[in-house]
Amino acid sequence: MTALPIAPPPRLLMGPGPITADPRVLRAMSAQLVGQYDPAMTGYMAETQELYRQVFRTRNDATLLVDGTSRAGIEAALVSLLRPGDRVLVPVFGRFGHLLVEIAQRAGAEVHTIETEWGTVFAPEQIEAAVREVRPAMLAVVHGDTSTTVAQPLEGLSHVCRELGVLFYTDVTATLGGNPVESDAWGLDAVSAGLQKCMGGPSGSAPLTLSPRAVEVIDSRRSIEAGIRDAESEVRSDPIRSNYLDLAMILDYWGPKRLNHHTEATTMLYGARECARILLEEGLDAAVDRHRLHGAAMLEGVRGLGLRPFGDLEHKMTNVVGVEIPEGVNGDAVRGELLEDYGIEIGTSFGPLHGRIWRIGTMGYNARRDAVLTTLAALEQVLRRAGAPVTAGGGTGAALDVYGAAA
Amino acid sequence: MTALPIAPPPRLLMGPGPITADPRVLRAMSAQLVGQYDPAMTGYMAETQELYRQVFRTRNDATLLVDGTSRAGIEAALVSLLRPGDRVLVPVFGRFGHLLVEIAQRAGAEVHTIETEWGTVFAPEQIEAAVREVRPAMLAVVHGDTSTTVAQPLEGLSHVCRELGVLFYTDVTATLGGNPVESDAWGLDAVSAGLQKCMGGPSGSAPLTLSPRAVEVIDSRRSIEAGIRDAESEVRSDPIRSNYLDLAMILDYWGPKRLNHHTEATTMLYGARECARILLEEGLDAAVDRHRLHGAAMLEGVRGLGLRPFGDLEHKMTNVVGVEIPEGVNGDAVRGELLEDYGIEIGTSFGPLHGRIWRIGTMGYNARRDAVLTTLAALEQVLRRAGAPVTAGGGTGAALDVYGAAA
Repeated sequence: MTALPIAPPPRLLMGPGPITADPRVLRAMSAQLVGQYDPAMTGYMAETQELYRQVFRTRNDATLLVDGTSRAGIEAALVSLLRPGDRVLVPVFGRFGHLLVEIAQRAGAEVHTIETEWGTVFAPEQIEAAVREVRPAMLAVVHGDTSTTVAQPLEGLSHVCRELGVLFYTDVTATLGGNPVESDAWGLDAVSAGLQKCMGGPSGSAPLTLSPRAVEVIDSRRSIEAGIRDAESEVRSDPIRSNYLDLAMILDYWGPKRLNHHTEATTMLYGARECARILLEEGLDAAVDRHRLHGAAMLEGVRGLGLRPFGDLEHKMTNVVGVEIPEGVNGDAVRGELLEDYGIEIGTSFGPLHGRIWRIGTMGYNARRDAVLTTLAALEQVLRRAGAPVTAGGGTGAALDVYGAAA
Repeated sequence: MTALPIAPPPRLLMGPGPITADPRVLRAMSAQLVGQYDPAMTGYMAETQELYRQVFRTRNDATLLVDGTSRAGIEAALVSLLRPGDRVLVPVFGRFGHLLVEIAQRAGAEVHTIETEWGTVFAPEQIEAAVREVRPAMLAVVHGDTSTTVAQPLEGLSHVCRELGVLFYTDVTATLGGNPVESDAWGLDAVSAGLQKCMGGPSGSAPLTLSPRAVEVIDSRRSIEAGIRDAESEVRSDPIRSNYLDLAMILDYWGPKRLNHHTEATTMLYGARECARILLEEGLDAAVDRHRLHGAAMLEGVRGLGLRPFGDLEHKMTNVVGVEIPEGVNGDAVRGELLEDYGIEIGTSFGPLHGRIWRIGTMGYNARRDAVLTTLAALEQVLRRAGAPVTAGGGTGAALDVYGAAA
């Protein structure tokens, strides 16, 4: 078999992520490699750490990239912070809550959950009450769950965590860069993310930050590989269950010791660095405002077409909207036609929402006026052909009204 | 803090890897993203699988990429194939043997080792005898260990593995694309690799192939995430200990079911695909011959300078040579001067060899005549300034003799 040179078809990715990458990020990723311990490389690593401190709004020294997708970042945090048998509390409000449960179980933790219907979030008091009841070693919450389009408010939960010595972990893959994320102000101990949503990059690198309290737990579990161990290195009987995702080792690699671990995925690091540069050039607050604006335009646009948005809109993420599939319309056929005839991708959904809603994203590079208007224009045409009642010009009109009001 | 646009200094990476990436690979990686389930994307995934079947010389259907560095591929194989308590035999002949031990231990396996001095390999009979004695569930061997520059012969070990029902796993990160690797002919059940050595790409994607026998073991451990599970899905009490590196799930994602797992690292996939395309265009045998030629030129070159090569040369990998640091010479100072004054990187070493040898690679894109000659010319100058006795013109002269004889 021979394969042709890569030549992806032009697509406008308006699903829940991955989305079209910022071309600047892809250009940065085409830069040539340098060695793992080249002063240029360690300089780039240090810069990347500092950039992500700003992105996460934290002063945590322990801020770095895990070499894998956002899921690798989640697992690195859970497997490194949870000892087998530790209790963990996971408030589940969508697919990615289930993922936290699954990963924590595989790490050997005793998992307790509270659940709420997909599309809703918990009142902070519900979570606080569960923390007081379960007394877990860790509270693990997804911030924004793209499966349901809503974000769980995290403010005000840190005091109970501090009081009871509970580590507070959250996954901000879906929110970072497009919704407020305040690692230090919210008292988060461990936060992990990815590049493929509001950060405007490709999947494959997981920025992560750890509070001094989290680092303390990880330090107490540190062990050093036999191949590079010296006489003074401690050997532990219960090491962290993963080597690849062992944050103690990854910290030693990113820290001043620069102890060899994996071979850093240099090209992904270049990409992660550029994502952060672009975001900080715009300014975090400005980027959140931009996501808010285009998210609102898309929301009003789908309403203007006569469609019904899904879920608790008060807690909707800025960057994605769930749209109920109209009665009698084949959701996958509509998505297929949008992709084939217009080159536009919108998202399907999982679990209890499968077949019930589409998910339309406005994030990162695609949180843009032309992307929103083009998507609404195409969606109108496809829905009409599918026999759904749509208001002619209602989608773009409503979106333009949002833009007009904001101007 | 602001950070400048990425602009790595020009480097010729002649260490044990990562090495300078083929610019074609970096260009392929700058292609725009498509969605995870776009027919274009699933098409690229299928092509990549078929390309790596050819690269690994296998007919294994289960051939795919793990989204992480080569170490992630190793851990995926071990954690997915080994149940806690399973016996595994690891013949250790360098740093990466210790890494297999470490990863297998963390997977809960009962690890047995045999060891040989760094720089040497085992006679196949030694390994066979140990397999018969230990009766492990798995024999796990590094193929080429860059820490010592030698490759363990793997041919002829499969019969004892088949006879005793032992899974045969090997890591070919350091050898694939530059040394013979025959997955099917050697009877390998699981083989993992990386891109950053002879494959000429950046670190961050781990090609991996599994025999039907290995897939059977993994299938018996399959479980499906709660978030996407349906009524018929089985739930297991002892799932694979990692979710991210669970090959059952990763197989379901790459296979016809396309069950959602991680978000594929599209840009790394583009890179892995291009690495394989370039290699197969040249031809596997031709690529191995090229590595043999330039490896021989570098070996004779360092000898021609009056330096002593390290280790069992009969089992030396084609793509890296260990060089004893001459008496009275500061190895790190020489490396620093090569990097700073000539832009050339050569490698340091680990464990018992630290401070004793340099490691010089000739691999992937840098298995080239000009790269070999430039490195030898610069090394001569730096060594002379360091006060080492060197033969003027001896390095490039000896390398040119190798090229002349081959012409």
